Amino acid sequence: MSENMPGKGIGTNVICQVSLVVRDIERTAKAYADIFGMEVPPVRITDREPVTHIKYRGAPTEGRAKLAFFQMGSLSLELIEPLGGPSAWKEFLDTHGEGVHHIAFRIRGMDEVLAYLDGKGVLLIQRGDYTGGRYAYVDAVPALHVIVELLESTK
Amino acid sequence: MSENMPGKGIGTNVICQVSLVVRDIERTAKAYADIFGMEVPPVRITDREPVTHIKYRGAPTEGRAKLAFFQMGSLSLELIEPLGGPSAWKEFLDTHGEGVHHIAFRIRGMDEVLAYLDGKGVLLIQRGDYTGGRYAYVDAVPALHVIVELLESTK
Repeated sequence: MSENMPGKGIGTNVICQVSLVVRDIERTAKAYADIFGMEVPPVRITDREPVTHIKYRGAPTEGRAKLAFFQMGSLSLELIEPLGGPSAWKEFLDTHGEGVHHIAFRIRGMDEVLAYLDGKGVLLIQRGDYTGGRYAYVDAVPALHVIVELLESTK
Repeated sequence: MSENMPGKGIGTNVICQVSLVVRDIERTAKAYADIFGMEVPPVRITDREPVTHIKYRGAPTEGRAKLAFFQMGSLSLELIEPLGGPSAWKEFLDTHGEGVHHIAFRIRGMDEVLAYLDGKGVLLIQRGDYTGGRYAYVDAVPALHVIVELLESTK
């Protein structure tokens, strides 16, 4: 157990993000902005695999996504529209349709936390890098009934 | 428009709760406590209709639920296990299975906010009272891809 590895659970219980997979991010972003009295946020597209090192179910993929973020209190609400090849996002849309995809937590020591969760049967679905950090989705559905995202800052 | 009615949207964008419908609340609560290093919270049962004035799709119901709450950062994560008769909770479990049921917001002026949302096609599913407040679930699924709960303190 490294110095980063929490003694209790994954070392945090602070939900920092709720994320939904949607089919039309521009339309859904407008609806959120309207109902909650917010500005429509910019939509950006995730980088390609050589930049993000995305691995979905163990293999690199051309799957990407459009993303938009609303700050809603202390957490962000993220909209995700899957693009291109296989991904956790496309898998969810194909299986469940639109809806809440995951809740996210900021952790320290990604590999240690993933190993801890793996030991509890909570298995990695997808991981990758983004500017300033790395993320992983784990399949907490059997235990917690929702996918969990781990976020770690590398700055 | 009353003095309580917001000029922009529903007057708040602060997510105060994320709630999941589950089949076995004791088992799921233990899993959350384990993975996030928290105490297992007490499980309580909602009061009966004469106390809560619950109306599901416009009619009183004997539907009730077991509830458990985890404080996770600035918001609470609620677990809900449907009991008894028809309810928004049972409808969700029967239709979607276990998973995220709603995100909640604290509002002022319940009837005004419900009328505002109704005007946007976001329709009431269920409402009722609890000690110190009232709640309503609205069907924001077509627009926002998640059910929204409105919570209003009456204290």
